[in-house]
Amino acid sequence: MAGVRLTIAGGAIMLAMSSAVGADDAAVLRQAQDTFRALPKDMGTSEFPTTEERVHLGRLLFFDPRLTIDANVSCATCHQPALYGSDALPKSIGVRQRVLDRNAPTVLNTALNFVNNWRGDRANVEHQAAVALTAAGSSGQPDEGAVVDRLQRIAGYSPLFKAAFPGELNPVTLNNVAEAIGAYERTLVTPSPFDAYLAGNVNALLPSARAGLEKFINTGCAACHNGVGVGGGAFQKFGVVENYSAATGSQTIDRGRVDVTKDPSDLYVFRIASLRNVARTAPYFHDGAVPTLPEAVRVMGRVQLGVKIEDADVRDIVAFLESLTGELPAQFSNAPTLPPGAAASATR
Amino acid sequence: MAGVRLTIAGGAIMLAMSSAVGADDAAVLRQAQDTFRALPKDMGTSEFPTTEERVHLGRLLFFDPRLTIDANVSCATCHQPALYGSDALPKSIGVRQRVLDRNAPTVLNTALNFVNNWRGDRANVEHQAAVALTAAGSSGQPDEGAVVDRLQRIAGYSPLFKAAFPGELNPVTLNNVAEAIGAYERTLVTPSPFDAYLAGNVNALLPSARAGLEKFINTGCAACHNGVGVGGGAFQKFGVVENYSAATGSQTIDRGRVDVTKDPSDLYVFRIASLRNVARTAPYFHDGAVPTLPEAVRVMGRVQLGVKIEDADVRDIVAFLESLTGELPAQFSNAPTLPPGAAASATR
Repeated sequence: MAGVRLTIAGGAIMLAMSSAVGADDAAVLRQAQDTFRALPKDMGTSEFPTTEERVHLGRLLFFDPRLTIDANVSCATCHQPALYGSDALPKSIGVRQRVLDRNAPTVLNTALNFVNNWRGDRANVEHQAAVALTAAGSSGQPDEGAVVDRLQRIAGYSPLFKAAFPGELNPVTLNNVAEAIGAYERTLVTPSPFDAYLAGNVNALLPSARAGLEKFINTGCAACHNGVGVGGGAFQKFGVVENYSAATGSQTIDRGRVDVTKDPSDLYVFRIASLRNVARTAPYFHDGAVPTLPEAVRVMGRVQLGVKIEDADVRDIVAFLESLTGELPAQFSNAPTLPPGAAASATR
Repeated sequence: MAGVRLTIAGGAIMLAMSSAVGADDAAVLRQAQDTFRALPKDMGTSEFPTTEERVHLGRLLFFDPRLTIDANVSCATCHQPALYGSDALPKSIGVRQRVLDRNAPTVLNTALNFVNNWRGDRANVEHQAAVALTAAGSSGQPDEGAVVDRLQRIAGYSPLFKAAFPGELNPVTLNNVAEAIGAYERTLVTPSPFDAYLAGNVNALLPSARAGLEKFINTGCAACHNGVGVGGGAFQKFGVVENYSAATGSQTIDRGRVDVTKDPSDLYVFRIASLRNVARTAPYFHDGAVPTLPEAVRVMGRVQLGVKIEDADVRDIVAFLESLTGELPAQFSNAPTLPPGAAASATR
């Protein structure tokens, strides 16, 4: 199975000798298969089904700015297709120039997370959408009635709600908006070279990525970043070995989940980030304080594991993390055409 | 050539008997062919060529919010694919919640206009882009240097500028950003059923649209809204018969081109709007004061032509205008993947 692989990356030509799959490769693959899981095709459940009608409606709502107070911010404002479902900002800017509290995680594969948001205060993507639709920063709308009123002014929506929630007398509700957006988000999976690798195709990863994977596991990263999301499955304190802010340069200290639960043991605790598409979603951490992936890897080694990861190892780990970049789903990269209608005049 | 056409529109099933092409149909077609022109495939020129490299780069820049002061507004913010290259707002909201002076026209087919912007104070799409890149409302960047600095922080852009502007020593300039965005915009054409009709396929338009076309011409609309853009080819006073504001309900009076030229004969003069995709780009007029297309047709009859257009005629004219809705070009509806990189920290 030996072969020569010619790759053009960043303008440079790299010549990689992909050697035969040896005993080491097979051992790393087995270890990886024990630690991670390939993506499902879809993240629907019996409670939150991804029916065609719900996904279609949810996709429109996701891209529609007319739901928010000044009709200029949609879900896609902070979760842009061109930026892999994120916005490249340390902290997102919502309606009326309001800076949100934390970095916008990518919406891709986010339904895999065991809970949502950095502090885990959203049970699932539906809950996240429902709160965002009337939150001061992301929406600015005062209540459900204000959102529903916007939808009722756009004639094209009514039949779509009826189709997505059959049998309901008044299907245009905040809960159904959230369930439709959630259904859409549950389809946003991004199969990556790493998934092909987990399925047994060792050569789906470059040798540097395979070396990085081994280091990722053996350095201890995979103790938290494991499972189907390569993270996203549990909470963890940010700063196990030392306070995170000295390493990240964070200007304000976020106390994390303790502010949600009031449990002192949750000080500096956050949901472990999923690392899928991490190479495309800079900047990093809950406050976006770190702009590059190599630096984020170094910070994690230092504050979580108490190790200084050497430059060559950082490079390999980054190569592994790049193998987590998947293909954008067409229903995300391709914008839908929204039902026409002028935005209700905003408050000016 | 008689036939039955079954169309599903807005949930209702319409059965239209498309009659044989008679003498009247042929006469209207000839009149239309004298008055309008089908879309070109592309709007590049020898001065502004749509080379593959420029279009590719321009497409990325069009979607990239990192060029503006807080890195949260891109060209696509006011010219959204999901809203047919517009934003559904009366007036766009740019950076830092600044409300722009006028309604955002769709970017689709806009390179066809003989000049750009409502007051014609931009010579072409390149000029429009260049001004927008440092304008207070749309960008907030103080000068060329600030925009170039942002681009230089995103490693992926440098080789793309080199490829798009070969032979230039320092191709990352504001002028080249504008020329690349302009090249991209020059590819954004939306061939419509009306173009098929102009090519001789009478049945490309429903009978109601053909009736509307005839009324559009005979009522006098086509005196201004003609040519390839169905408008966009000249200036005209808004309010030939009476002041526009009583009809539109405009709350502030825009004096139009006179504020650009200082020529009193330019009072209330604007560039004639292109009507391509007009059914998808509510609200209407320079200030977005009118939310629906039937009302916009009535306003135009009243203030430009001094006629009250009857409801049945409004419906037919709207049916004609709907035939100007074209297909979105894939390079617009499908978001590109931007070169990764965290946004340079904004001023906060």
